[in-house]
Amino acid sequence: MKLAMIGLGRMGANITRRLMRGGHEVVVFDRNARAVDALVEEGARAATSLAAAASQLPTPRIFWVMLPAGESTETTVDLLKAEAETGDIIIDGGNSFYKDDVRRAQELAELGIAYVDVGTSGGVWGLERGYCMMIGGDKAVVDLLDPLFDALAPGIGTVARTPNRMKQEGEDPRAEKGYIHAGPAGAGHFVKMVHNGIEYGLMQAYAEGFDILKGKSSDKLLEGERFDLNLTDIAEVWRRGSVISSWLLDLTAAALAKDQMLCEFSGRVADSGEGHWTIEAAMEECVPVHVLSAALFARYRSRVDHTFGDQVLSAMRFGFGGHVEMPQ
Amino acid sequence: MKLAMIGLGRMGANITRRLMRGGHEVVVFDRNARAVDALVEEGARAATSLAAAASQLPTPRIFWVMLPAGESTETTVDLLKAEAETGDIIIDGGNSFYKDDVRRAQELAELGIAYVDVGTSGGVWGLERGYCMMIGGDKAVVDLLDPLFDALAPGIGTVARTPNRMKQEGEDPRAEKGYIHAGPAGAGHFVKMVHNGIEYGLMQAYAEGFDILKGKSSDKLLEGERFDLNLTDIAEVWRRGSVISSWLLDLTAAALAKDQMLCEFSGRVADSGEGHWTIEAAMEECVPVHVLSAALFARYRSRVDHTFGDQVLSAMRFGFGGHVEMPQ
Amino acid sequence: MKLAMIGLGRMGANITRRLMRGGHEVVVFDRNARAVDALVEEGARAATSLAAAASQLPTPRIFWVMLPAGESTETTVDLLKAEAETGDIIIDGGNSFYKDDVRRAQELAELGIAYVDVGTSGGVWGLERGYCMMIGGDKAVVDLLDPLFDALAPGIGTVARTPNRMKQEGEDPRAEKGYIHAGPAGAGHFVKMVHNGIEYGLMQAYAEGFDILKGKSSDKLLEGERFDLNLTDIAEVWRRGSVISSWLLDLTAAALAKDQMLCEFSGRVADSGEGHWTIEAAMEECVPVHVLSAALFARYRSRVDHTFGDQVLSAMRFGFGGHVEMPQ
Amino acid sequence: MKLAMIGLGRMGANITRRLMRGGHEVVVFDRNARAVDALVEEGARAATSLAAAASQLPTPRIFWVMLPAGESTETTVDLLKAEAETGDIIIDGGNSFYKDDVRRAQELAELGIAYVDVGTSGGVWGLERGYCMMIGGDKAVVDLLDPLFDALAPGIGTVARTPNRMKQEGEDPRAEKGYIHAGPAGAGHFVKMVHNGIEYGLMQAYAEGFDILKGKSSDKLLEGERFDLNLTDIAEVWRRGSVISSWLLDLTAAALAKDQMLCEFSGRVADSGEGHWTIEAAMEECVPVHVLSAALFARYRSRVDHTFGDQVLSAMRFGFGGHVEMPQ
Repeated sequence: MKLAMIGLGRMGANITRRLMRGGHEVVVFDRNARAVDALVEEGARAATSLAAAASQLPTPRIFWVMLPAGESTETTVDLLKAEAETGDIIIDGGNSFYKDDVRRAQELAELGIAYVDVGTSGGVWGLERGYCMMIGGDKAVVDLLDPLFDALAPGIGTVARTPNRMKQEGEDPRAEKGYIHAGPAGAGHFVKMVHNGIEYGLMQAYAEGFDILKGKSSDKLLEGERFDLNLTDIAEVWRRGSVISSWLLDLTAAALAKDQMLCEFSGRVADSGEGHWTIEAAMEECVPVHVLSAALFARYRSRVDHTFGDQVLSAMRFGFGGHVEMPQ
Repeated sequence: MKLAMIGLGRMGANITRRLMRGGHEVVVFDRNARAVDALVEEGARAATSLAAAASQLPTPRIFWVMLPAGESTETTVDLLKAEAETGDIIIDGGNSFYKDDVRRAQELAELGIAYVDVGTSGGVWGLERGYCMMIGGDKAVVDLLDPLFDALAPGIGTVARTPNRMKQEGEDPRAEKGYIHAGPAGAGHFVKMVHNGIEYGLMQAYAEGFDILKGKSSDKLLEGERFDLNLTDIAEVWRRGSVISSWLLDLTAAALAKDQMLCEFSGRVADSGEGHWTIEAAMEECVPVHVLSAALFARYRSRVDHTFGDQVLSAMRFGFGGHVEMPQ
Repeated sequence: MKLAMIGLGRMGANITRRLMRGGHEVVVFDRNARAVDALVEEGARAATSLAAAASQLPTPRIFWVMLPAGESTETTVDLLKAEAETGDIIIDGGNSFYKDDVRRAQELAELGIAYVDVGTSGGVWGLERGYCMMIGGDKAVVDLLDPLFDALAPGIGTVARTPNRMKQEGEDPRAEKGYIHAGPAGAGHFVKMVHNGIEYGLMQAYAEGFDILKGKSSDKLLEGERFDLNLTDIAEVWRRGSVISSWLLDLTAAALAKDQMLCEFSGRVADSGEGHWTIEAAMEECVPVHVLSAALFARYRSRVDHTFGDQVLSAMRFGFGGHVEMPQ
Repeated sequence: MKLAMIGLGRMGANITRRLMRGGHEVVVFDRNARAVDALVEEGARAATSLAAAASQLPTPRIFWVMLPAGESTETTVDLLKAEAETGDIIIDGGNSFYKDDVRRAQELAELGIAYVDVGTSGGVWGLERGYCMMIGGDKAVVDLLDPLFDALAPGIGTVARTPNRMKQEGEDPRAEKGYIHAGPAGAGHFVKMVHNGIEYGLMQAYAEGFDILKGKSSDKLLEGERFDLNLTDIAEVWRRGSVISSWLLDLTAAALAKDQMLCEFSGRVADSGEGHWTIEAAMEECVPVHVLSAALFARYRSRVDHTFGDQVLSAMRFGFGGHVEMPQ
């Protein structure tokens, strides 16, 4: 198939590469001419504007927007409205808030333009491992785009098949290849959002566990109660045969094998919108999410030296007990 | 009544004072001679050793140990064993772990010595407000000591009577005066421990609330979404007519009235054993304590610049997404 | 002053009563004619429509809307737009989301109509205790309405003055009487929202504490490790001299004094919007709120027999360990 | 090598089988004669008592105790003391509390008997996948036992090698095969304990995520805000290329593929000691563990219909607001 890729950051560039490897033709556009040039050298066609991109595509034209969620994506989708015609398809492959997808899909539907949201997991590894994709949009349109998703997905690969997953009639074979049509517009990003929410929880579980392991050598503990544990070997040993083996553990093992002290990291941890939105979604549904929220809040806390709340605690303790704060 | 007070720190000294105001005679002992002298000037009798203290008391002799929980208390109770005789009474008014009380009471009972644990709340305000006391031990012994507790307790005072609390037969009038016989040895400190566990939770609830109020003026928010709130006035206004009025709020209001920025506090918040033991007790009972534990963990977190767990998170993020940490 | 009260539920009716006690004239309107009649008997004037209410008021006309947050309030404010004229004032005394206030104030400002949001705490006790009010709106308008707020507020009363609160120039005396001008439109409900968020946290802290106390008599514990504690007396004793005395504790003590088993309550706990919005506000500011969120989630959990998540846990345990679920 | 296996439950029996497959000779003992017979048929030698087992072994004799943690293990280790002689080795392969290991190792060392603790992960899958083992004890003894561990461990297998793990001098090759010598006695179970603590956190993260996905179809949401998501396909799609792929997800995918509603599970989730001990260890080190504790508490909550704390909340709400509980 032939499509335009709008936005050639790390994700957009690698998705373009993997599409081309799969035999697809990609017209590329980015404000950064160097990013365009790099991909042209690898076989993509350059476009110097959205209009130029549109003019190079057969109908129905397919625009894949791969930009940071929020203003960038919103603006670009708006601009594409002017370029697109009835029957054309706009794909948002970024990390948009799913309610924005629902709104955009409605607005575009009035113009006869299809909107597809693709929640994409895989990060810097996607080019080699393939991208796990959660897709929202009209069935007919998603089916039409199937060759693209098939090229991007990991495929069944060497991962063991799920035992109870039978080739029953009506069962969707795409899930085993690493992509699904999750539902109408917005459903793709909703599922991706929850994926990221879970990711935060998993990461924090490992983080707390390694914190306890490391703390066991603390000289604040009595001498007989300390162990000096090799965190690198522990991460490694859990990769085989344990209940907690995972890809995140693989990455942790690799990082610890490089430097058990993780000295290059100061521990100021960013969060993107998905963690926050996951908690909002849970609250809208009245679902208790103690772990997912705690994981998010731990990141907030990691980015400040102290909270005003901590000061309030100290002030109260001084007030009722005359307690003076601990020295640094 | 006449008793010996062992340990003249802030709590022991003030308890001695309030007992003397109530007409009781107190023999005082402390390793620090100055602390002894100060109270002698106020009417107490000095003892230069535990044995000397014992020799000045009528039988049954009453020893009130008011020392830091743990080794100090343990050692002193052990030494008192040698001085005490059948029928004598040892009171632990500190913050001992209740299982230590249970053990000590059994050991002393074999020697015919009574052991009473008194969980004491009131801090630096106790001298004036009176001490709230939660008492564990044999009924006969606790009854015998009643004049002491009555002198130390706040009394009914001006606090409104509880509506449904009828003067039914068998109802214990002591609770309304600010002290209770909670049960056998250990029960007093157990109830006091849970009191402190709740205290941590209450404090953290206020702390988080004020954090949100303060954060609402952050320049990270869009200009139209900020409020520049007067925290001092907010704490004050909640003291009357609101659902969240409390003594801890009174203290917060006073601290904020002095300095709305709480500049003298850096926010490194200590915790004593009770918060930790409360979580342990909850786990032994399989009671979910999301709030009490979170309050405790927030204090742990307040005392370190970052956790190793935070570094693990950053390392994973770099591993899967190439994400570089946020700048300071 | 003379004003119209729109909405005569428990809150609206009692606010009307307290305003009339303070010498103000109130025109009352409610869809429920009986509610109107009851207040007319107590001295209010009836209105059979918003228009009729408007026609009975001097200019600038003051409309106090006291309806459930959300659609009811939104609709009524919209209808009042048609009745109101330049200079008139619409007060929302309900529990609106503060961002709705900001929006409404802007819309009404374009018509020259003032909008004031009054976060009101006090519940069924407000008639007697007075209402704690957090007010948002233009300074001039809030000042104009001062006689109303003054009549509704608790006043300084018998609550001890805050030590560091000096009568400095420029200090607002209203906070000590139980009401504040928190800031522009929305600020009142924002502060009230955080008040409720804190309320959830405080309540959950007590709830967990009493859960531990009650669980200490569980026959799942070894015989020597149980205490059979009198929760009624414990709640009572903490009311005087302890660190955790509060109005919520007073209410708990009263409930336990009536029935220590709290048999009339099954434990399905509702939440209103404020708890949820508080967490959202915290997330917008990146403030960690482990306790406030946990308190909210505990309520969600209280209302379902089990979560699907719990089933997922059981399914995993069966998967890796062959563990069969615990019997009921 | 030749050793005795004490305890032929699911774990003990399968470990015996895997040892025999690896060429080792196993003398088996269990109170249940049938369990013994079954393994004898597969090539093991029966022992009718601990003494009989001891008599069949060469020196130094190796006893592998594979019993439930707590009393069973404690009693058996005590009985083995009588049978064992200087130089003999007792292995505890169960889930003992690591402080019990430290104590036992000291007691046995005085008799010249070696004690080795083996934290063993793998559950019902261990026979085929191999067991992940975390081992504590004296280096010389653990080295002596290496052939046993090597036979039980998964081996490097098809799992990708960790990139930064170089074959540097002194690096322990065992970690990549799935077992480690973690440190002195107790260190094995300590690491296994933290493994299980992390396991709880990971499981709860997935559980909450699937709860949100399922709740998105709730008819409590507005019609336009619902998605009817296929949880089975979502679990499957995340297995390839996503950030959250893991063995626990594989198991979840298998369970959902069998029955998307998980009807056979009521959601009453057990916990064993490790989750609890992990929190205790964290508290001893002052490490904040919001996620690991929340995961544990969610299990406690899953096993009761309501908490007394929930009733306390309802009682307070009735007290301040006259709020009547939500209907069932």
